[in-house]
Amino acid sequence: MTITPPALSVFESLESEVRSYCRGWPAVFDRAQGSYMYDEDGHRYLDFFAGAGALNYGHNNPVLKRALIDYIERDGVTHGLDMGTTAKRAFLESFQNTILRPRDLPYKVMFPGPTGTNAVEAALKLARKVKGRESIVSFTNAFHGMSLGALAVTGNSMKRAGAGIPLVHGTPMPFDNYFDGTVEDFLWFESLLEDHGSGLNKPAAVIVETIQGEGGINVARAEWLRALAELCERQDMLLIVDDIQMGCGRTGAFFSFEEAGITPDIVTLSKSIGGYGLPMSLTLFKPELDIWEPGEHNGTFRGNNPAFVTSAAALDTYWADGQMEKQTIARGEQVEQSLRAIAQEHPELGADVRGRGLVWGMEFTDKPRASAVCKRAFELGLLIETSGPESEVVKLLPPLTISPEELDEGLRILARAVRETA
Amino acid sequence: MTITPPALSVFESLESEVRSYCRGWPAVFDRAQGSYMYDEDGHRYLDFFAGAGALNYGHNNPVLKRALIDYIERDGVTHGLDMGTTAKRAFLESFQNTILRPRDLPYKVMFPGPTGTNAVEAALKLARKVKGRESIVSFTNAFHGMSLGALAVTGNSMKRAGAGIPLVHGTPMPFDNYFDGTVEDFLWFESLLEDHGSGLNKPAAVIVETIQGEGGINVARAEWLRALAELCERQDMLLIVDDIQMGCGRTGAFFSFEEAGITPDIVTLSKSIGGYGLPMSLTLFKPELDIWEPGEHNGTFRGNNPAFVTSAAALDTYWADGQMEKQTIARGEQVEQSLRAIAQEHPELGADVRGRGLVWGMEFTDKPRASAVCKRAFELGLLIETSGPESEVVKLLPPLTISPEELDEGLRILARAVRETA
Amino acid sequence: MTITPPALSVFESLESEVRSYCRGWPAVFDRAQGSYMYDEDGHRYLDFFAGAGALNYGHNNPVLKRALIDYIERDGVTHGLDMGTTAKRAFLESFQNTILRPRDLPYKVMFPGPTGTNAVEAALKLARKVKGRESIVSFTNAFHGMSLGALAVTGNSMKRAGAGIPLVHGTPMPFDNYFDGTVEDFLWFESLLEDHGSGLNKPAAVIVETIQGEGGINVARAEWLRALAELCERQDMLLIVDDIQMGCGRTGAFFSFEEAGITPDIVTLSKSIGGYGLPMSLTLFKPELDIWEPGEHNGTFRGNNPAFVTSAAALDTYWADGQMEKQTIARGEQVEQSLRAIAQEHPELGADVRGRGLVWGMEFTDKPRASAVCKRAFELGLLIETSGPESEVVKLLPPLTISPEELDEGLRILARAVRETA
Amino acid sequence: MTITPPALSVFESLESEVRSYCRGWPAVFDRAQGSYMYDEDGHRYLDFFAGAGALNYGHNNPVLKRALIDYIERDGVTHGLDMGTTAKRAFLESFQNTILRPRDLPYKVMFPGPTGTNAVEAALKLARKVKGRESIVSFTNAFHGMSLGALAVTGNSMKRAGAGIPLVHGTPMPFDNYFDGTVEDFLWFESLLEDHGSGLNKPAAVIVETIQGEGGINVARAEWLRALAELCERQDMLLIVDDIQMGCGRTGAFFSFEEAGITPDIVTLSKSIGGYGLPMSLTLFKPELDIWEPGEHNGTFRGNNPAFVTSAAALDTYWADGQMEKQTIARGEQVEQSLRAIAQEHPELGADVRGRGLVWGMEFTDKPRASAVCKRAFELGLLIETSGPESEVVKLLPPLTISPEELDEGLRILARAVRETA
Repeated sequence: MTITPPALSVFESLESEVRSYCRGWPAVFDRAQGSYMYDEDGHRYLDFFAGAGALNYGHNNPVLKRALIDYIERDGVTHGLDMGTTAKRAFLESFQNTILRPRDLPYKVMFPGPTGTNAVEAALKLARKVKGRESIVSFTNAFHGMSLGALAVTGNSMKRAGAGIPLVHGTPMPFDNYFDGTVEDFLWFESLLEDHGSGLNKPAAVIVETIQGEGGINVARAEWLRALAELCERQDMLLIVDDIQMGCGRTGAFFSFEEAGITPDIVTLSKSIGGYGLPMSLTLFKPELDIWEPGEHNGTFRGNNPAFVTSAAALDTYWADGQMEKQTIARGEQVEQSLRAIAQEHPELGADVRGRGLVWGMEFTDKPRASAVCKRAFELGLLIETSGPESEVVKLLPPLTISPEELDEGLRILARAVRETA
Repeated sequence: MTITPPALSVFESLESEVRSYCRGWPAVFDRAQGSYMYDEDGHRYLDFFAGAGALNYGHNNPVLKRALIDYIERDGVTHGLDMGTTAKRAFLESFQNTILRPRDLPYKVMFPGPTGTNAVEAALKLARKVKGRESIVSFTNAFHGMSLGALAVTGNSMKRAGAGIPLVHGTPMPFDNYFDGTVEDFLWFESLLEDHGSGLNKPAAVIVETIQGEGGINVARAEWLRALAELCERQDMLLIVDDIQMGCGRTGAFFSFEEAGITPDIVTLSKSIGGYGLPMSLTLFKPELDIWEPGEHNGTFRGNNPAFVTSAAALDTYWADGQMEKQTIARGEQVEQSLRAIAQEHPELGADVRGRGLVWGMEFTDKPRASAVCKRAFELGLLIETSGPESEVVKLLPPLTISPEELDEGLRILARAVRETA
Repeated sequence: MTITPPALSVFESLESEVRSYCRGWPAVFDRAQGSYMYDEDGHRYLDFFAGAGALNYGHNNPVLKRALIDYIERDGVTHGLDMGTTAKRAFLESFQNTILRPRDLPYKVMFPGPTGTNAVEAALKLARKVKGRESIVSFTNAFHGMSLGALAVTGNSMKRAGAGIPLVHGTPMPFDNYFDGTVEDFLWFESLLEDHGSGLNKPAAVIVETIQGEGGINVARAEWLRALAELCERQDMLLIVDDIQMGCGRTGAFFSFEEAGITPDIVTLSKSIGGYGLPMSLTLFKPELDIWEPGEHNGTFRGNNPAFVTSAAALDTYWADGQMEKQTIARGEQVEQSLRAIAQEHPELGADVRGRGLVWGMEFTDKPRASAVCKRAFELGLLIETSGPESEVVKLLPPLTISPEELDEGLRILARAVRETA
Repeated sequence: MTITPPALSVFESLESEVRSYCRGWPAVFDRAQGSYMYDEDGHRYLDFFAGAGALNYGHNNPVLKRALIDYIERDGVTHGLDMGTTAKRAFLESFQNTILRPRDLPYKVMFPGPTGTNAVEAALKLARKVKGRESIVSFTNAFHGMSLGALAVTGNSMKRAGAGIPLVHGTPMPFDNYFDGTVEDFLWFESLLEDHGSGLNKPAAVIVETIQGEGGINVARAEWLRALAELCERQDMLLIVDDIQMGCGRTGAFFSFEEAGITPDIVTLSKSIGGYGLPMSLTLFKPELDIWEPGEHNGTFRGNNPAFVTSAAALDTYWADGQMEKQTIARGEQVEQSLRAIAQEHPELGADVRGRGLVWGMEFTDKPRASAVCKRAFELGLLIETSGPESEVVKLLPPLTISPEELDEGLRILARAVRETA
């Protein structure tokens, strides 16, 4: 496939230099359906990126699309702030029935604004308010968002520099396996907590991703997560799981922490919770933490009703039974096999393959190779991105609804891209 | 009209205590069209709130609705991060042609995430980065958002307390007319800036609303805004106009600062920029400030393409000529006359009437009266809210597309509500 | 008198560029007695600076000298940390008997370390601990010290820049007469406190100097101080009077706030409290504020026993009756007359004369003139310094023990220096 | 020896609850000479505390005493701010000739105020100013002072809580041997520095004590210090050695870092630098760092001339040759042998013995035992203190001038105290 770089004039002349994805993928996308996107020149791209995890049910999923158009057609409330609406009620009922009740999760539901960083800001505010302490512990290579509260617990130094103020009240700790297993889990963290002379400000909470997506597909082991949950309880700190990228079934189960058998105090959801790629987010917390004043946190778009409609449709369609979880795990095995085959085919790469469910990463010891692979994949019609602090990991986030054949097609392109960038 | 309080069970049992509007308006809204919302019991409400300014073109505006449904039907890209898409290009071109060029505004356009607070966070980051200073000056009773960066320059003490950390790097200055004209404008601010011993950390920027909506419909005079712009230039500070609530034609002109004849360095837009009540926001800035690194600020939902579609449709429909501005000013005169008549009818209220375009406030010296009026108005079928630090101001934000008859209907209900709360 | 600039080699080669007084007074001082200092070339200088207020009883005051030598001779404890010592007990008893009891002041006494900035740090810590709030209000052109806590409430921008971190948790308010009487006292401050939407973080305390020495001899009126004390009480903020430079009789009464008839919650003393120019400081506070944990604030030199000895001797000698206060006021009148005569002689100067007791300032509208006058005075054998944000004020701080003749001598030199710098 | 608890009334009634040493040692001390203190009831105490390291040359050392009295007798300048004085010149020359030149140390000398915390504040300010970064790395169980800048890099949680504001801009790292050798040195610190996604704000400087006195006599190995110095150089961070307690010969060499063969960028000295227990401190730094503005940091008592006199006398007397260093090391061996004998005599204690030169610690696994031992030692006429985060270490800091017999006497009392608290 030959792609003629399109005239990007208005993007280049008018849009800020901050733009990024459009640089790596110099196309103008027009339509999208299921696992594919189409640019305006008619090229087709298989999407192994899925809106950075916001499109678990594929592009313009027909079931959700039907519900969405019906709602718009009938003049359902579009913008509802935090008023009661029928769409919001339907969402709350679906969420309770398909997600919370079957998992015996006691959470209250907060609509903190429609983006992930809003959900994280609300989570951190609540944790600080409940515990009366300012400090939050996060982990190396964490990513939690771009507003100042969330950015302070995010690792990436380039993004942190954008703050323009010193980012304080956060302390990073080593994520699982940070020292390749040579150091006991939580040795440093627990020592600081137990030592009255350590100089660590006692944290209100710990915020963690079960798998760090932006940080390089770093997968925390279930036992590490359990030990973290126990540490939090022992030390009177709240445990916040930021499930924005890994929740909504990405790892198999609806919540990525289910496998570990833990119940975090606070959970953030966004990205795929709206189902159709529409802005929506949730902050969930144990009922005893619900000490908010009415309106103490708010936001104009926290009642994005079209998203409630597609969200409820997605929950009812995909989460009424355990089918989705099983399918994701099966598809994940397919991915893992192919990635391991690629790694085996190229022992010189020293590639590390890791993941869970339908999130996978392949780290290259020759770091720039990862970007070269993604660039070549794009030319070959596959959308795939890097992650990690030095963009050294090729990250696979296909839609959960992808067929085995589509998956195979993408994995073959990836194998070819690896080969052709040797 | 008698309203039976509906069963709110799932809202009460599952949604967080942080919910607010649904407390004052105990209804479950189902449909909305133009200036009206309808609850599930079939009651009709005239909407003088308009999504807190996010619905300037009315609910489910048919022109935008058509464009939106067409886009969804044809599987246009829904979720695009910051990739180039045809919908984004169309929006950028409309924005350039209908808004920037005719006003000779040189701005670069940034998509900082789809909410107002994202736009403010990006504006503050950029100002700090450009100037290499941390401090920002805001004004008494300012409202800029709920994430930590924006909250630090917001006045409301209850909302600030929600942060759970000390909010620093911001200093409040008196808004226009804070001392009823007894003190010279900027006497305090300029004295601090010019006195090397004042203890004020030199600000990177000043952030201001031309009319403070949440703060109580406090209207800055054009000459005050001009003097502020000159002060900023003289003192090497950037001027940020937060036009999230007052932009998009709310005061008549598209940008609320046009009347003052100033060109801010940075402008934030959100709420009605998407046209249909869909989450969208922009940060605009002079090209020489565009020193962002690619991806230094990002966000999953910054490419909400359905909003680009409705936004472009709104711009093309309403802003290709000066019709909208004229109409808003005419409607505003209608509102002003009625409010002044109400005030005259009730001299005992000592009511202060203020506003511009289609944003108006009526302040009650007997502060709780304002909430009582809104409560009674709701019972009479009018959605109207209070604002101000003690909720002492009844705030009118009808859709700009409201007909003179609808406006009259709402103003008559308001007059009755005032009368019946005496 | 002609002064040969001495060889300053080791000062210039070895001492840091941060040194300052030695630049304006290029002499090497050797001996000092009463109101005079002597350099190693035998030149005599009348001292109108008195260790920036640390030598109220003159240089090497013979009464204190005797006590000091006796104590050293008999091997009294020199360094006592915060152990009980006979010298410390004697000081505490003298302080109670000559200062606290006669004034009916209920204060507890804390030894926070031997410098003024230590005393301020302890005062701010305690205020924050008691009130559970972080913010402190200070005033324009305040000076409270150089360690980070004290520096954050100090006005001077050059000194603030030295911090290397953003100085936060402090907000400056206008000192008395900041707007030449055109604005009502505390209009801005009280408005911010009473407005729930002001954005001011509620302060734990207000810290104030009754006369700002470094800030330019700005004299707060008694009624302003009383109004401030009332405001603090009304608004549940602690009032801290930093009496480091103006206490110990500088303004007449032992505490500079006595004239106003107020009882601050916390008072800091340093400079002349040791009597002999030896490092010592105190933080005083109402007993109900004494919620310190043992050792929660400490410092190696907080038990500088030689200073306790000279301090007690000074208190017993000078403060057992009201003589000192009367004499200071009389000497002050002598200074005022002379300064006013100088101002009258030079109407072109537009000089402003202000002060109280034995602290006086003369502000020059031609700002560099103040430094020129001090330079010429030095050549003529008078040590006198400038203050104010632009060093525009000649500041007179003679020892309180100065004789009328010495005072006259200095004032005549000053008059000549003014004349000769025309 | 039986000690009648003296009447402590004025201490109890007037002095703040913050007092601490006087609680553990309920005596009123009157005189002191060499290694002994005497209370007013005539009891004698052997001093193994030495003013927390401020009395390395013993109490009221006769050589220094002579110089001090002579200076006072002849009316030498007592209080000199930062004017040039003969006493200051003599000190600078002695310091250059006896300390800097023989060690080939290029430092500029700053007088930052007379206390240790002043010296640390100045060091941190300068490091931040030079590097343009805010963050400082300190170590677990560090102690650097009580003013806010120094407190932020101090470990003790009780002391940190006294700040009343969140202490930020500092990050603790594990001190040498924090994990009993199970973890590679600097594994965590260097990983964070090299990982662009770690979330660590790049530090301006690292501040370290070679032996942590307050932290529990934790002795850094020379190779650890060298590796730290190399890490600082490699990572463009300044190395600050806080030698306030361990400098001035406490560990043998004048500077405690000499043994490691490193040259820190900045060094702080206080405590024994004045020789006689008089308040004095220095901040030393490489000449290329001397970018201070004149007066950018200042302090009333930074020219404590009596301390300059005793300091110069101490340097000339004790540091003109290598005698002092040799003697200290010999005395240290005597201490070590006795402590190890005590430990051997009581294997049930699991006591850990550690130290260098004349600073030693004995850690008790039964933590409260350490305080019990000190209490019993006091009753037996020995002043000795605990340190460590839980006061679990008995700390020995005898004067460096102590005789072998006195040392033996004290060690015998200590052995008895250990025995009698079994």
